[in-house]
Amino acid sequence: MMINIALAQLNYHVGNFESNTKKIISTIETARSNGADLVVFSELCVCGYPARDFFEFKEFIDLCEDAALQIAAVCADIACIIGLPTPNLRHQGKDLFNSAYFIENGKVKAVVNKALLPNYDVFDEYRYFEPETNFSCIDFKGHRIALTICEDLWNTIENPLYITRPMDMLIEQHPDVMINIAASPFAYNHDTERIDILSGNCTQYNLPLFYVNQVGAQTELIFDGGSLVFDAEGNMLDELPYFKEHVSYYKLDKGENGKAVVSYQHTGTFKPHHTSDIEQIHQGLLLGIRDYFYKSGFTRAILGLSGGIDSAVVCALAAEALGAENVMAVLLPSKFSSDHSIGDAEDLVKNLGCKSETIAIKNITDSFETALHPQFNTLPFNIAEENIQSRTRGVLLMAMCNKFGYILLNTSNKSEAAVGYGTLYGDMCGGISVLGDVYKTQVYQLANYINRDKEVIPLNSIVKPPSAELRPGQKDSDSLPDYDILDTILMEYVEHRKSSSEIINMGYDEQVVKRVIKLVNTAEHKRYQTPPILRVSPKAFGMGRRMPIVGKYLS
Amino acid sequence: MMINIALAQLNYHVGNFESNTKKIISTIETARSNGADLVVFSELCVCGYPARDFFEFKEFIDLCEDAALQIAAVCADIACIIGLPTPNLRHQGKDLFNSAYFIENGKVKAVVNKALLPNYDVFDEYRYFEPETNFSCIDFKGHRIALTICEDLWNTIENPLYITRPMDMLIEQHPDVMINIAASPFAYNHDTERIDILSGNCTQYNLPLFYVNQVGAQTELIFDGGSLVFDAEGNMLDELPYFKEHVSYYKLDKGENGKAVVSYQHTGTFKPHHTSDIEQIHQGLLLGIRDYFYKSGFTRAILGLSGGIDSAVVCALAAEALGAENVMAVLLPSKFSSDHSIGDAEDLVKNLGCKSETIAIKNITDSFETALHPQFNTLPFNIAEENIQSRTRGVLLMAMCNKFGYILLNTSNKSEAAVGYGTLYGDMCGGISVLGDVYKTQVYQLANYINRDKEVIPLNSIVKPPSAELRPGQKDSDSLPDYDILDTILMEYVEHRKSSSEIINMGYDEQVVKRVIKLVNTAEHKRYQTPPILRVSPKAFGMGRRMPIVGKYLS
Repeated sequence: MMINIALAQLNYHVGNFESNTKKIISTIETARSNGADLVVFSELCVCGYPARDFFEFKEFIDLCEDAALQIAAVCADIACIIGLPTPNLRHQGKDLFNSAYFIENGKVKAVVNKALLPNYDVFDEYRYFEPETNFSCIDFKGHRIALTICEDLWNTIENPLYITRPMDMLIEQHPDVMINIAASPFAYNHDTERIDILSGNCTQYNLPLFYVNQVGAQTELIFDGGSLVFDAEGNMLDELPYFKEHVSYYKLDKGENGKAVVSYQHTGTFKPHHTSDIEQIHQGLLLGIRDYFYKSGFTRAILGLSGGIDSAVVCALAAEALGAENVMAVLLPSKFSSDHSIGDAEDLVKNLGCKSETIAIKNITDSFETALHPQFNTLPFNIAEENIQSRTRGVLLMAMCNKFGYILLNTSNKSEAAVGYGTLYGDMCGGISVLGDVYKTQVYQLANYINRDKEVIPLNSIVKPPSAELRPGQKDSDSLPDYDILDTILMEYVEHRKSSSEIINMGYDEQVVKRVIKLVNTAEHKRYQTPPILRVSPKAFGMGRRMPIVGKYLS
Repeated sequence: MMINIALAQLNYHVGNFESNTKKIISTIETARSNGADLVVFSELCVCGYPARDFFEFKEFIDLCEDAALQIAAVCADIACIIGLPTPNLRHQGKDLFNSAYFIENGKVKAVVNKALLPNYDVFDEYRYFEPETNFSCIDFKGHRIALTICEDLWNTIENPLYITRPMDMLIEQHPDVMINIAASPFAYNHDTERIDILSGNCTQYNLPLFYVNQVGAQTELIFDGGSLVFDAEGNMLDELPYFKEHVSYYKLDKGENGKAVVSYQHTGTFKPHHTSDIEQIHQGLLLGIRDYFYKSGFTRAILGLSGGIDSAVVCALAAEALGAENVMAVLLPSKFSSDHSIGDAEDLVKNLGCKSETIAIKNITDSFETALHPQFNTLPFNIAEENIQSRTRGVLLMAMCNKFGYILLNTSNKSEAAVGYGTLYGDMCGGISVLGDVYKTQVYQLANYINRDKEVIPLNSIVKPPSAELRPGQKDSDSLPDYDILDTILMEYVEHRKSSSEIINMGYDEQVVKRVIKLVNTAEHKRYQTPPILRVSPKAFGMGRRMPIVGKYLS
């Protein structure tokens, strides 16, 4: 029997049952009017993903069930699949399952629990959930559905992270189609990996697949959508848009050989949405900024504008994400600020049309140095005075936040965050770090991408040598290797967890490698106290990388 | 056959293979000269616990194996049990096991892998380790040992967190003794829980038990030692000291009925070490401070001294942990500081004999307000100006750190951290938070305990109403309920995860409960950026409580 399936790729808000439930119900009603028999939502859509330790509150679990009942109540003549946590009533193991409800005729017809629980990098699912060990297909209007949840399809034969594979058990019940609901966060290399693994499941089990991912950002995690449809040969039939909500419709029928056949309900000229890494990062950061503000109930951002490339890129992204009228750029020149820095910052403000203020910091840093004179006496100018400048800027920006209700955007990039080239409680302040997962070399690419149609970011901010301008004539290259070398070493150490000797064996200078790794290791205490970082890479600082602070590091 | 068993309760340093290996080897050599046949070390002693994402570096795992071989090399005529991560060579599942080596005749005679992997609160073991599913006892000099690792004995029948119980399988092989190696962190209620659960295992399986715990602090986690020996009836035969290293010796023999019998090798007047909660917290915090400095290679602490009770208690603890000569107390009076605050702070400095400086902040805060005048104009004094004072203090203290090599001690207590009664980048600065897991009501108890023999903390700091002194006549009670009420509500919400309606039903005022919970929820973004907190309770802020920042909270 031919059925119509709608895939609903939506942006949820963790813990916001009112808005999530309303969105799910209104999507079901639209899908019904478009003739859908079944609407598929993403993993844990009822509460949003990741809900983290909200799962430890019984009230939260009860509200998930309440929401599911409200959703079931509108499904008298349409079926849907929703994701939510459910209590484990088996009296052993963790308190919860990560579940999917198959709702039909206004009732929960089947409950499927997730078997493979990701517990690496940013994932902590084994903290809350018991893995399922029993599996059943679901029969619906002449089709037998193998319904799984996200990671359940990710235990590949080449890289078996788990000792079971749910589809190996489900396939024995002769399903004719797979449905997978997911909450799979963005990293710039993740879309191709996802397509490969899902396509591989189709060829391995010889079944078509509907895959629905969450979209939208939840603090540091950005979900990119890009839901997918494959035929039984693993050919991609459709790829939903990235970084935005979308609902699309498909027909599922039986072919002459009795096998299920999927067709796109609409005109069907399928264009892959895949774009370059930098375009993806750009889109991801815009969504990350927008959802951070929207979901926390704020509208206006503030940041310190130095004339350098990092704060320029953050300012341009914020203006695009929030509207230039909602962005306040503050120039905070010191006696070491060069004329070109102030000029470049002013040019950017003009190009973007955002608001700006200028507050000179010299009198304040002088008053700090005067107050500390009895202690510092004749000791030479060093990092103490450098940091006073950076921290004075932090205090001024936070005072503006407190007085006017802005959220401060942190402008540190990943290279700086890695080597600790930043001042704790100074330029490391902020509500959210926009570029903390973007290496300096990628920041340049982002700047050029932002300038693809016209000069938004002043060329001079892009071409001049980077400097923190905390002492006369200072340049980043005084204390750090060139960024192309630095970023490659960081990639090998942070992303690939290589040892210093392995990196040296790749051809890098021993002294440079050891110095860089030592800088990374001694900056753990700083990174512990930095704002959440919008994650765009497979290994970001923050919840996905948990290093000891007081530990003896190898290099 | 009678054998001599040594239990080695030692303080390791995460990642410091040189010092850990040296300590283990020297303990083996001493134990040999004392006639021991077997020395038992604690869980993951080779690398220290918790090593966190060090486990993702192959070099780190290789160094663990190297260390184990060095240890084996000194065990020609003595056996030992050590803990270390080992590669999972079964080609499916996680990369590692959490293992114990039983070393005899200079060789690894048996490898035992941990089956139950704690993955809740501060524990992330499923992030790294595959759970073991096969179990074998170890025969040694006429005894059959059921060797397990920490959590393996914690799956009680009343609260079955896991679906297997390793001892249920091991008991079928007829062991005559249990040995459990552990890394079980301190919380003030944990010692009695630990004794109950371990004693319960003895009665359930009718076997004696040797239990060896780690001691020492690793950043926020404090391990309290308190290793234990029980007979087969679950009677406690010995309890090693808490919060310090200790090695003790026992005889294991067979009784007339063929069952194993344990006896204390020495005179054997057994006195339990158990003390009051506040004494334990006091000891734990001293160890936490001492190890934070020692293991990070620093000796000198700095803190801001307000004249209030929190900074007074931190100063007294630091002086006891590090020596008064290594503690610099800085008085940072503003125009709102009362005379008694300055006097109380000076009295404390005199009582402790620590160093002190006084730096008035008025000129600096004036310079901030002058600089911000074009923006703030005629807007009234509010939290913006209050926070400028607190942040000015933060900048001054950090400048002293940068110039002289101090580590700043954070002095916020748990009640303040909970409700966000503190200034991010101001009084929330620091390398380590000493009281961040100690409620205000407990801070008073600590102060009285510190004063148990003589007045160290000026009585006036204890009896006066608490105030942040950021505006004229300010008192904590202006904006917060009394601390005894506040702390009880916080305990129910933070520790017990009760809902607002449950807490209200316990008899608390609805408005107060809702306001307190709302304050806790809206302070998540602040707590995200605070220093690591020495953990003394079963539910501390930090790695053990992972809440969404941008999430819709229920109250």
